[in-house]
Amino acid sequence: MFYCPRCNEVHRGFRYKCDRCDSILLVDYEDRSWDPNGEGVWRYQSMIPVRRSVSMGEGSTPMVRRRDVRDSVYMKLEGDNPTGSFKDRGSTVVISDAVNRGYGTATVASTGNMGASIAAYCAYGNIASKVFIPKDVPEEKILQMRAYDAGLVRTSGSFSDVVDRSIEEADRGTYLASTGLNPYFIEGLKTTGFEIFEQVGVPDWIVVPTGTGGHLTAIHKAFVELKELGVVHQLPRMVAVQAKTCSPIVNAWSTGDEIVPSENPETIASAIKVKVPFNGYTAIQAMRSSGGMGVIVDDHQILQSMKDLGQEGVFAEPSSATALAALTEMDVDRDDRLVLVITGSGLKDPEAIQLE
Amino acid sequence: MFYCPRCNEVHRGFRYKCDRCDSILLVDYEDRSWDPNGEGVWRYQSMIPVRRSVSMGEGSTPMVRRRDVRDSVYMKLEGDNPTGSFKDRGSTVVISDAVNRGYGTATVASTGNMGASIAAYCAYGNIASKVFIPKDVPEEKILQMRAYDAGLVRTSGSFSDVVDRSIEEADRGTYLASTGLNPYFIEGLKTTGFEIFEQVGVPDWIVVPTGTGGHLTAIHKAFVELKELGVVHQLPRMVAVQAKTCSPIVNAWSTGDEIVPSENPETIASAIKVKVPFNGYTAIQAMRSSGGMGVIVDDHQILQSMKDLGQEGVFAEPSSATALAALTEMDVDRDDRLVLVITGSGLKDPEAIQLE
Repeated sequence: MFYCPRCNEVHRGFRYKCDRCDSILLVDYEDRSWDPNGEGVWRYQSMIPVRRSVSMGEGSTPMVRRRDVRDSVYMKLEGDNPTGSFKDRGSTVVISDAVNRGYGTATVASTGNMGASIAAYCAYGNIASKVFIPKDVPEEKILQMRAYDAGLVRTSGSFSDVVDRSIEEADRGTYLASTGLNPYFIEGLKTTGFEIFEQVGVPDWIVVPTGTGGHLTAIHKAFVELKELGVVHQLPRMVAVQAKTCSPIVNAWSTGDEIVPSENPETIASAIKVKVPFNGYTAIQAMRSSGGMGVIVDDHQILQSMKDLGQEGVFAEPSSATALAALTEMDVDRDDRLVLVITGSGLKDPEAIQLE
Repeated sequence: MFYCPRCNEVHRGFRYKCDRCDSILLVDYEDRSWDPNGEGVWRYQSMIPVRRSVSMGEGSTPMVRRRDVRDSVYMKLEGDNPTGSFKDRGSTVVISDAVNRGYGTATVASTGNMGASIAAYCAYGNIASKVFIPKDVPEEKILQMRAYDAGLVRTSGSFSDVVDRSIEEADRGTYLASTGLNPYFIEGLKTTGFEIFEQVGVPDWIVVPTGTGGHLTAIHKAFVELKELGVVHQLPRMVAVQAKTCSPIVNAWSTGDEIVPSENPETIASAIKVKVPFNGYTAIQAMRSSGGMGVIVDDHQILQSMKDLGQEGVFAEPSSATALAALTEMDVDRDDRLVLVITGSGLKDPEAIQLE
């Protein structure tokens, strides 16, 4: 069952948007049960409404304590996934769905990581991939997508233009895998939340680098589902971190107004440079209902955090380093337990470490 | 206890080489027991003679079946480790040892991956790292080592010259972490073998991209130890793959002569470009005693295999792609079960995918 988190309309058949209010849908799944079994994303098969068919051992990523800091700040290392980012958690679910339903091609819009991930899973699942990307994607990610034999379409427009192109393409009969539009993608990303719970229980705060808002929405959904099943009794406070020139979700959370697309965003955090965040509404719902918050950091803070993380042994791409940068802007109790979600490997954009 | 695999001399105290015959030593450990518990490398603490102190969730890497191929060819994806290569398995053990023994600096010679790994673990363990590298290390690996704040020394000589410099440096009071010289490194690398056993049992063949010979030696040692403890009753056949211009181990295995250093090796497989393989003697012992073999592949085959792997969803660096390239040179039974060890991520040397 698909439901609209904005107008509560319920839809029986698979679709991308609400027929009534045009919002992005989420999935509900009545037969859910908490029965973790095995490893990785599919350890949570009983919480995922898609049957596993394309998997490369994604998930089961490390949770490590920050060095030299009080014991209660953890980092979830999503760069240890098969293509180097958390996107693999969603890709294994949506490409399983595409293969289960007999599609021969999956289409996706991407700032780089999503495209690399979908292309890899399409390759392993033996279907074609068509990846639409904006012009400022780091070269390492392009090379990675080429290696997976992706059908790459680079456009001169912004990420939002890229998304429009991918929807047009999908309307011609391919499977639309994009994070903000395919409700099953969130079902895969939920597993970050399940792993956090199994590794450290319910932390006080979870800090999530935020572009479309999908990962934050998904991690919150994981804990809400665990609460509904009586497995946990409280929710972690969800924190969205965005870059200064591209913070539509944090702005709308802060003002209480509708989400306004960012104008001309410029930031080194390319993976979260998303002007029109499809999962923004549900991300803000999650931040509000959990007592969380939004944080904005600038490129100088991001670069400094990237260097600080490296000097602690964690090489993160700029977007991921925002999670550490956010810490300096947050007012938390000394004993609060925090999880920083380090979303992607520094090897995906290594030149950034040289910037000043 | 340290023993010499060549002359069988036993040494009580920690040292790098045999006092009698100058060979590389291995560790024996009488209190070993097979008691896997937890996740990652330290799941095998009862088989590792060092107490865990510096760990970032290394190990527990995926084992995936090759697409479209008979079910019995598996790939072990070592790129999913914290720094993107299997070296992290050794680094967590040797840097734990360095920290346990109070060292403030670890020194290492590296073709790139080892340096990145040791630098990361030193950073996380809060000690300094000094990394000696030859001149042809890919830029991504250099940037990664810089991110970890490594003390980098680039030399104009070959890897063997680099090793000599690192030994001189270590003799001045730092901890020598190098794969071929520190016997504890092998103890960490052994865990690749333990995971293979837990994931697929005892395969007929394990194909290992081979530079120093350390990883192959270690995987074999893992199965020998399991056999001594009665956990397994047979050993997998160990296959060393080397690059055509740099194949001292395979050459010596083939001729039965002593290992002769390679002259002027040139290959895109930079991570296994090792003229003087410190663990070569034990690697050849492992190949012989297990009924294994040596395989030589050229750069053309390596590039083609890198592309083939990518088109199946696995982005591997050139050295790792040698494992697939070796398959075409091996004469195996149709029902034989093979594991290809994919040692490092393609993001560590992404430009190679563009070469023809």
